[in-house]
Amino acid sequence: MSLLVIGTVAFDAIETPFGKTDKILGGAATFISLAASYFTKEINLVSVVGGDFPQENIDMLKKHDINVDGLQIIKDQKTFFWAGKYHNDMNSRDTITTELNVLENFNPIVPDQYQGCEFLMLGNLVPAVQQQVILNLKKRPKLIVLDTMNFWMDIALEDLKKTISMVDVLTINDGEARQLSGEYSLVKGAQKILAMGPKYLIIKKGEHGALLFNKDQVFFAPALPLEDVFDPTGAGDSFAGGFIGYLASTKDISFENMKRALIFGSAMASFSVEKFGTENMIGLTQEQVDTRVQQFIDLVQFDIRLV
Amino acid sequence: MSLLVIGTVAFDAIETPFGKTDKILGGAATFISLAASYFTKEINLVSVVGGDFPQENIDMLKKHDINVDGLQIIKDQKTFFWAGKYHNDMNSRDTITTELNVLENFNPIVPDQYQGCEFLMLGNLVPAVQQQVILNLKKRPKLIVLDTMNFWMDIALEDLKKTISMVDVLTINDGEARQLSGEYSLVKGAQKILAMGPKYLIIKKGEHGALLFNKDQVFFAPALPLEDVFDPTGAGDSFAGGFIGYLASTKDISFENMKRALIFGSAMASFSVEKFGTENMIGLTQEQVDTRVQQFIDLVQFDIRLV
Repeated sequence: MSLLVIGTVAFDAIETPFGKTDKILGGAATFISLAASYFTKEINLVSVVGGDFPQENIDMLKKHDINVDGLQIIKDQKTFFWAGKYHNDMNSRDTITTELNVLENFNPIVPDQYQGCEFLMLGNLVPAVQQQVILNLKKRPKLIVLDTMNFWMDIALEDLKKTISMVDVLTINDGEARQLSGEYSLVKGAQKILAMGPKYLIIKKGEHGALLFNKDQVFFAPALPLEDVFDPTGAGDSFAGGFIGYLASTKDISFENMKRALIFGSAMASFSVEKFGTENMIGLTQEQVDTRVQQFIDLVQFDIRLV
Repeated sequence: MSLLVIGTVAFDAIETPFGKTDKILGGAATFISLAASYFTKEINLVSVVGGDFPQENIDMLKKHDINVDGLQIIKDQKTFFWAGKYHNDMNSRDTITTELNVLENFNPIVPDQYQGCEFLMLGNLVPAVQQQVILNLKKRPKLIVLDTMNFWMDIALEDLKKTISMVDVLTINDGEARQLSGEYSLVKGAQKILAMGPKYLIIKKGEHGALLFNKDQVFFAPALPLEDVFDPTGAGDSFAGGFIGYLASTKDISFENMKRALIFGSAMASFSVEKFGTENMIGLTQEQVDTRVQQFIDLVQFDIRLV
């Protein structure tokens, strides 16, 4: 059951209280595809990089069974670059540099061989571009998941609302849910956002876990309490990748299965934050993934039988 | 299996974004006893009030099967009074007034008929007074739970550390865990605090749930996502009351049973914040409690079988 992933493939330069990196591999679609690759082997990537993007990164993606036919390489331009610095609490960060480069005129062409995908993951991008991808698909996927951020709420709210109305699942963080809904209460805010179109809303709360809402139900997945959060970059994307990768592998989009997908997504996010950039998302073993998921089970499962 | 509860019985005046109260019934021991009363019928209260404390409050406690033989009434003095105002996010508050009154010279006398209790809940109080209660018991209870706050870390740290070394379970919030341990990471901080003596540590994270640690295990209980948090006053005490009330009723202090106790505690806290003061903690039905606990089960239970 093939998964189409659209989003950025980028260079990041990151500073956290634990250290500082040079330009390293990053980008929403990179984290999403890598996280999803532990669950499904039919991942089709659509993105764009410049002539400065190393072949070894492309080889690494291929090694994870990620199809890069849709990865455009614009030889005479540079790859999207973001530099940021996290504050001591790791919950907030300052953007130091954003160089759009190849992203400035990104036309997300969906190769013919990608048509017919059943799952579509729209990583954070210009809402109009995300929308274009949906329109470029000849058959509507079984499930469309959209990730976005406050930046687009600030500068392209109407485009974003239109895109939101076209998807099945929206993933945003708690601050963004409050901004989008105008409600401080996440419970009230969730219902307002669901009224905008999506059947499901996932509110990511970072180290405080994630909530899944539909009109009648709510489910909560915890974050794993870690000794140290080394670098939060890509945690939300790794979460989304694990989530949709698991759904694509099981071909089941019931609420019950989405609960499981949220746990697998949370597990992938927990790997992501333990090292800089994508470092910890490459070459994990099945045993490592299973052990991590078991930690989530142990963390929240209890046995109460009400009489 | 009797439960001894020590702590304040007080008047509170509370202002939240939802409204403002005159002097209403409050105090750690009040919330603890009321929450525990839904699980066990042998609750012995030790506290102190002034001549201004209404008989109807005492009658209400009795109606909840709370033994008030140990509630001292100092006729010519006034009851402890606290006034506070919550900020918009409900996660922080300013103290407007603190009148110690009867608390200033509180001598927590344990009546003879309270001796032999198997469970002891030390609500937030001067650490030296909490310690005195433990020393006043002829037989050490099966389980001693201590609640405290940052205020005592600021002004009576050595007394507090001594008290902490004498108990089995410590409950504090995340900020207090960071202050007490000197570690930002709650996982690292928990191990440092456990090294101070308690076998179990509960870190309360308010709307983000609560963590239970022992040396080898960790369990997470979520908070229920509510439409509105009306008044957070007493949430931590209601949590503690549900926790120890459930343990006292089941007479089982294993880690597995503490997990359940954490969920029952979280359920009681969720009732507490839905109305001002103790209003929602009085006269709940068994059905209301069961329905609420079922909501917690539905919120976090999932079915993942790893092969």
